[in-house]
Amino acid sequence: MLIATWLNGNVINCLDVQERAFAYGDGLFSTILVQDGAVKLLDLHWQRLILGCQRLAISLTNMMQWQSDFAMFIAHHPHCTAKIIITRGRGGRGYLPDTQAEPQCYFYAYQTSSHSESYQLGINSDFLQQRLGCSPLLAGMKHLNRLEQVLLRQELAQLAHPEALVCDIQGRVIEGVFSNIFMIKEAVLYTPDLHQAGVAGVMREHILQVAHALKWSVCIQDLYPAQFLAADEVFFCNSMYGIWPVTQIQGTIWANTPLTQHLQANLYHV
Amino acid sequence: MLIATWLNGNVINCLDVQERAFAYGDGLFSTILVQDGAVKLLDLHWQRLILGCQRLAISLTNMMQWQSDFAMFIAHHPHCTAKIIITRGRGGRGYLPDTQAEPQCYFYAYQTSSHSESYQLGINSDFLQQRLGCSPLLAGMKHLNRLEQVLLRQELAQLAHPEALVCDIQGRVIEGVFSNIFMIKEAVLYTPDLHQAGVAGVMREHILQVAHALKWSVCIQDLYPAQFLAADEVFFCNSMYGIWPVTQIQGTIWANTPLTQHLQANLYHV
Repeated sequence: MLIATWLNGNVINCLDVQERAFAYGDGLFSTILVQDGAVKLLDLHWQRLILGCQRLAISLTNMMQWQSDFAMFIAHHPHCTAKIIITRGRGGRGYLPDTQAEPQCYFYAYQTSSHSESYQLGINSDFLQQRLGCSPLLAGMKHLNRLEQVLLRQELAQLAHPEALVCDIQGRVIEGVFSNIFMIKEAVLYTPDLHQAGVAGVMREHILQVAHALKWSVCIQDLYPAQFLAADEVFFCNSMYGIWPVTQIQGTIWANTPLTQHLQANLYHV
Repeated sequence: MLIATWLNGNVINCLDVQERAFAYGDGLFSTILVQDGAVKLLDLHWQRLILGCQRLAISLTNMMQWQSDFAMFIAHHPHCTAKIIITRGRGGRGYLPDTQAEPQCYFYAYQTSSHSESYQLGINSDFLQQRLGCSPLLAGMKHLNRLEQVLLRQELAQLAHPEALVCDIQGRVIEGVFSNIFMIKEAVLYTPDLHQAGVAGVMREHILQVAHALKWSVCIQDLYPAQFLAADEVFFCNSMYGIWPVTQIQGTIWANTPLTQHLQANLYHV
């Protein structure tokens, strides 16, 4: 449930009809867990937003103000799921951005909807039929063009699983519908390369940093379904729920996931 | 310049903060030329919107009402560039649409910004460097996920040309930045297949129908840059400006474009 919406530090009740995020999805977002006023992985969220703005040529002039506005927002909403949306701002008709347009920074606070605690112990999963496109221009960014995810989420809703693996049109495993995906094979941590498709999630980045701190070997590369089915462990992650070990995909069962559990236990303690 | 904005038949001044078109680009649009109360190619615009809604599973329950609302809108704004936007409507956080959500139908009226008349005689053009992604899930639709076009339009603004050809990541020519593209070779009309990328424009569809009425041979297939450079004629089209013949791409010059001119002359008269 939506609790509050701010724009550039002020409460708002509605959006500008000329907002380019509405017309073209011309912007970026990040979804953030806020508990007892503590903002999880905040630096990584801002880092990703900044990188996205750079790739889309959205001006970062107001970034310091947005960051201080967000601290005030969290003071008002210390328990919530927070969403930061940065857009290119107002525009007329036509794709070309107005160079005078001021980027806009929105904050949404939602009640945190808790996932089943049991998912932390493991979930069954599967591969979806629908395939992600490949767009190097947009790959990796958490931009506002999320129609593929809307379609994938509808397919997932037809399954009995809380999350599922999604391949791209080349047959590579890319991510979950609202998660990133990792696998472990012979003590090496693998996650898909996201230069062609997918969202480079904040929890994915955090886990890569934790793995580095734990001195684990890490490979970021193209990965195919057969490699996941032959893995020692598989898990999903995102910044809202942390890590979900995968205990079954089709006929393949993972009874033990010791390294995944080790990551879970150390997720915020390395 | 924006003249008016309506939602579901009523004037509005702002948008719902929970509009999924803002959050995810979860919707479709069409841009329409309105002159002296006459709406160009209206049936094709609605047809494409309906097809898009079907592909995105957006309910068409209110379609008849939207069409009658649009007639009233045009009575108020008989000279404009009209934009119809259909969205999935309100939503909470998360990609899964609320099955209770009501689709929303927006109309925007803009002052028509006239392109240079001389473009009807021919334009010089080129290929852009940036490539369109391939997404069969979304290809062909004029959906609200238009970030690639925003980036391409910025690249085009660096060139001296009013429009440019865009290839996909496989190297196929797909379209212009805000146009579709055709070529003529040995009296056969060719246009790219759009099952992997691109927008199936209303003017493209109309031209295919005109060509059929003129008993021209037509091929819709994968086409590569070398084929365009070896063509007898090349032209861009969209529903705002009609047809722009291409008179030069790099070293290739087209001095005469007789069949393109024939199409231009018969565009609304077959």
